[in-house]
Amino acid sequence: MTIKVGVIGTGNIGADHVTRLSSQVVGSTVTAVFDVDTARAEQVAASAGAVARGSALEVIDDPGVDAVVIASPGDLHAEQVLACIAAQKPVLCEKPLATTATDCLKVIEAEVATGRRWIQVGFMRRYDPGYKVVKDAVDDGTIGEALLAHMIHRNAVVPDSFTSPMAMTDSVVHEIDVTRWLFGQEIVRTTVVPTKPSPLAAAHVRDPQIVLLELAGGGVVTVEVFVNCQYGYDVRCEVVGSTGVVTLDNPSANVLVRHGRRAQTVPADWRVRFGATYLTELQEWITGLRSGVVGGPSAWDGYAATAVAECAVASLDSGAPVPVGLVERPGLYV
Amino acid sequence: MTIKVGVIGTGNIGADHVTRLSSQVVGSTVTAVFDVDTARAEQVAASAGAVARGSALEVIDDPGVDAVVIASPGDLHAEQVLACIAAQKPVLCEKPLATTATDCLKVIEAEVATGRRWIQVGFMRRYDPGYKVVKDAVDDGTIGEALLAHMIHRNAVVPDSFTSPMAMTDSVVHEIDVTRWLFGQEIVRTTVVPTKPSPLAAAHVRDPQIVLLELAGGGVVTVEVFVNCQYGYDVRCEVVGSTGVVTLDNPSANVLVRHGRRAQTVPADWRVRFGATYLTELQEWITGLRSGVVGGPSAWDGYAATAVAECAVASLDSGAPVPVGLVERPGLYV
Amino acid sequence: MTIKVGVIGTGNIGADHVTRLSSQVVGSTVTAVFDVDTARAEQVAASAGAVARGSALEVIDDPGVDAVVIASPGDLHAEQVLACIAAQKPVLCEKPLATTATDCLKVIEAEVATGRRWIQVGFMRRYDPGYKVVKDAVDDGTIGEALLAHMIHRNAVVPDSFTSPMAMTDSVVHEIDVTRWLFGQEIVRTTVVPTKPSPLAAAHVRDPQIVLLELAGGGVVTVEVFVNCQYGYDVRCEVVGSTGVVTLDNPSANVLVRHGRRAQTVPADWRVRFGATYLTELQEWITGLRSGVVGGPSAWDGYAATAVAECAVASLDSGAPVPVGLVERPGLYV
Amino acid sequence: MTIKVGVIGTGNIGADHVTRLSSQVVGSTVTAVFDVDTARAEQVAASAGAVARGSALEVIDDPGVDAVVIASPGDLHAEQVLACIAAQKPVLCEKPLATTATDCLKVIEAEVATGRRWIQVGFMRRYDPGYKVVKDAVDDGTIGEALLAHMIHRNAVVPDSFTSPMAMTDSVVHEIDVTRWLFGQEIVRTTVVPTKPSPLAAAHVRDPQIVLLELAGGGVVTVEVFVNCQYGYDVRCEVVGSTGVVTLDNPSANVLVRHGRRAQTVPADWRVRFGATYLTELQEWITGLRSGVVGGPSAWDGYAATAVAECAVASLDSGAPVPVGLVERPGLYV
Repeated sequence: MTIKVGVIGTGNIGADHVTRLSSQVVGSTVTAVFDVDTARAEQVAASAGAVARGSALEVIDDPGVDAVVIASPGDLHAEQVLACIAAQKPVLCEKPLATTATDCLKVIEAEVATGRRWIQVGFMRRYDPGYKVVKDAVDDGTIGEALLAHMIHRNAVVPDSFTSPMAMTDSVVHEIDVTRWLFGQEIVRTTVVPTKPSPLAAAHVRDPQIVLLELAGGGVVTVEVFVNCQYGYDVRCEVVGSTGVVTLDNPSANVLVRHGRRAQTVPADWRVRFGATYLTELQEWITGLRSGVVGGPSAWDGYAATAVAECAVASLDSGAPVPVGLVERPGLYV
Repeated sequence: MTIKVGVIGTGNIGADHVTRLSSQVVGSTVTAVFDVDTARAEQVAASAGAVARGSALEVIDDPGVDAVVIASPGDLHAEQVLACIAAQKPVLCEKPLATTATDCLKVIEAEVATGRRWIQVGFMRRYDPGYKVVKDAVDDGTIGEALLAHMIHRNAVVPDSFTSPMAMTDSVVHEIDVTRWLFGQEIVRTTVVPTKPSPLAAAHVRDPQIVLLELAGGGVVTVEVFVNCQYGYDVRCEVVGSTGVVTLDNPSANVLVRHGRRAQTVPADWRVRFGATYLTELQEWITGLRSGVVGGPSAWDGYAATAVAECAVASLDSGAPVPVGLVERPGLYV
Repeated sequence: MTIKVGVIGTGNIGADHVTRLSSQVVGSTVTAVFDVDTARAEQVAASAGAVARGSALEVIDDPGVDAVVIASPGDLHAEQVLACIAAQKPVLCEKPLATTATDCLKVIEAEVATGRRWIQVGFMRRYDPGYKVVKDAVDDGTIGEALLAHMIHRNAVVPDSFTSPMAMTDSVVHEIDVTRWLFGQEIVRTTVVPTKPSPLAAAHVRDPQIVLLELAGGGVVTVEVFVNCQYGYDVRCEVVGSTGVVTLDNPSANVLVRHGRRAQTVPADWRVRFGATYLTELQEWITGLRSGVVGGPSAWDGYAATAVAECAVASLDSGAPVPVGLVERPGLYV
Repeated sequence: MTIKVGVIGTGNIGADHVTRLSSQVVGSTVTAVFDVDTARAEQVAASAGAVARGSALEVIDDPGVDAVVIASPGDLHAEQVLACIAAQKPVLCEKPLATTATDCLKVIEAEVATGRRWIQVGFMRRYDPGYKVVKDAVDDGTIGEALLAHMIHRNAVVPDSFTSPMAMTDSVVHEIDVTRWLFGQEIVRTTVVPTKPSPLAAAHVRDPQIVLLELAGGGVVTVEVFVNCQYGYDVRCEVVGSTGVVTLDNPSANVLVRHGRRAQTVPADWRVRFGATYLTELQEWITGLRSGVVGGPSAWDGYAATAVAECAVASLDSGAPVPVGLVERPGLYV
């Protein structure tokens, strides 16, 4: 059985998803796409043998579409996901599930009302082999009891449109999800610690930032986010347990020795670092759908991540710790 | 278009290929298999929705088979590949193309007579990302002019059926192909240097061994093959150029710190190390076939590798350097 | 000229210093020692051809003593250093200079009154080759402008006598000094972030801890201190600049490959990690004294470190950030 | 007791030794030096408070000289060492002990006739901490039984005066000594394998070279020597045992991340890489002399190394393996 996918949003990530789903994933095809940039949508559609539709809703309601991928701007996600639930179509929604915790709760309410899961949120790092090694070491007791962690998230540069809150909602949100997933606990408080800005960051952006994520079990995760580090895309993680430590660095197999230095390449950007990870994410999503199963990061994970990121933005403004207040977790997500 | 593949030989590697071609590669399906172990063939066929045929020839001649994968014992390869050429079906033949250079030449003769390529030989390392980095550094002048290389090929253990010549024909043959590919030159002489055997190797096996491969351009490649190293599967490569060096080690992103040691995992075996590489190899083969193209390592590469391995076996016996005499390369392979 | 040194305190570190000064440092000899454990003092004295005196003051006032090393319990340091100043003898005082900022100021007052420096405080990391590489990269602009840093300080285990405040005054005090030295700035605020204790730490010790050090220039340094990490002594540092990053890890030249792992040794304890560093510290102290120069970390550095550690202890109790209020820096230390 | 040392030869390495023995080693002073470059000798002597003598013999016979360091050109070593034995003064002779095996034997004969050891040969690598780790892993069974090894010896550049045989006598001679020391066996045969020269090497120098050293116990060591590798000084070693492997790479504690690369520094030259090792060598020599003991690499080690290097030069000329014929080892060296 081939899953016919409709893709909403054909920007960089959406277009990459179309390529993957039409030619790299087993068991899927792309039948319909939509983008406000009609020319772009036509071009992407043509590359995949799909049709460009006139709106997101047309894609969702298309009878030739079995499942939907949402890669549109974040403020449109909630409405589009709700439409997928209404149409009873599984949906893989790029993060964020919604830009506010309140909107995430509306989505959760709608999904819970159907009595089953339709939504997977695009926290792709859970599919990365390196992160899986960390997760296994935490889960199987290899490092004893996991106590705390240190995470680094650096980008070479960001466009001028990037703002300080986006460092939380677009960047740190990945560390928020990874933290919840690795520790199997909710984050109960978050603090953004003011620090000296880089002279190379835009004047309106506070960069780098240090963020503290406090877990329900008492552990603390430190996160450095630095979106203008200049030198590359550098995502790392170190989980400290009671008897050992497990770390994740950039994967590497090669060393180049020249000019007095032994050097390993740092990925240029997230497409280099996590390209294969996105493919695994999509393949597992499609494989699940072919068996009638929706798994992966849930709407609850999307809600929790947005709620914590919202608190991080509040802390960014106030400079004070901000407690995270989550609603009770519905049984569907236990 | 879906390529319907017949797979001959359903041992470990054959069965893995069936799984890949039926469920992990885009654009292929497995329709027929054969193995002398009928029960095994039935089981593997069932797992892939294929049919178990009564002989290799039945698979090759099956009108429901578009292309063939040969993963049978090496001494059957030549005959089976010839049958594929006769049936005008593209074939991916696991190494060796044939167990003797003479038989390889018969295959080449048959392929050349058709005026086009049908054969790809299963030297999968050319599809490994780490080896590609090495190849690129050699080709683009990053390390200046490539002068020589050091290669290591270790297995944790081998079964009792393993013999000293197999270290050349089954193990070092990969380094032979990698050497020819990286340097873009033929190997003109090979020497097996006698060395002290491991007390943990079987009495009838000389292990480890050191092999010297001399290139047409004058460069020398040292190869250590050690098939009872106990600790894991360890394949490494260092190419030395006039201005720099590029190395390949086991890919790794994680470090585990415990008990006074910072440790990275060594792959347990070649399935761990090269599993994803085999998948890339098969995907590129299928993608090519869907466009009507046969690429990758050719019958000529298979012949050259077998010829050099044959000389290595001769040197193993004599202890002396053995020159490699290749026929003139047919135009089809230039 | 040979500098005749008196050593006060012949516990582990004092005895190591006696060995170094009597047999590994060029230009020094040990002539007198004192310890409340008379037998121990006699034994150490004998090993170095020195005399065991009846009190610290006897050592300081001994006409056969040119310079003094203080390795006694920290609460005795201030009084002993003051006696050295009174006796006009250069003194290398192990950290802390004094256990309270107030006492440190008394020492500073006394030294300033003499119009010259007599005191070096034993912050030996400044003499470590790895830290010097970090310092150079910060100072010469290799990483652009230094913005923030991450530091880790782990011990395998601590004795039962260890308390939570000691994690600040005995362990983190090194990171406090390193931070001030690397950035060339004072620390203006410190926060101890409560985190989940290790089940292997004694019940009365909060361990691990996360400490934030805020610099006058706005940068923030995160410090993890974990004195029961079980696996070894692990001191690391990563300074993040506007265009690059420089890191310090455990020095290593060897890899051991066994049992499926490539492993590097983590130092067992600080004597393994910093033994050679202590020797460099003492050699440079003696070399300076032979030229009539007292250099290295000053009484001001000792005061600032104690003042910041005091604030860290206060933050440990209160859970809130604690501002660091230093007096004006006397001209002697500019 | 202070050992008064006379130093013959004040070129780079001799001058470094003078500095070490006069100001960095405990228990030694330099009282006399000689160099054919009188001005240079005067300058070096002045820096150490020593006297420049008119000949090597004047240094050796100087009653104010207890022990001698020979750092003159290699072809003078034998005569000068013999003079030291005649004068009954311990001598640390830089490699080679003599430029021919025959001359080495004359030295051995003279030393044996005295019934005790006077000579230590300057194979300083045995004092390097990284090599000691390798030696320990070989000796204590950590890697099982040592079977073979791979060694690399690269220099950035060499002066025009460098010749092909010097790659054996000046460079590979270190690997020859390390091999004998690590395995505790003599080398019985050596082969220089012709390989493609670097376009950046001088026309009269064959560079790089591959050398095979065969041990009495059957093991083989591969050595790559490349004295114009351009990028730095790179000395590495990997010993392969029956159950594991131990490697030595350039010591490093720091990583610099910039411009898309994580990089470690390769030493610029041997003074950077082995400076501290020379100091340890000299300190242990002096410490031994103060106890009346001469240890370290012996005249026998010097003879064996020269004999093997001589065979390597012969193999360089002939292209064939050259057996090493050593005399019977005198009891003094067992």
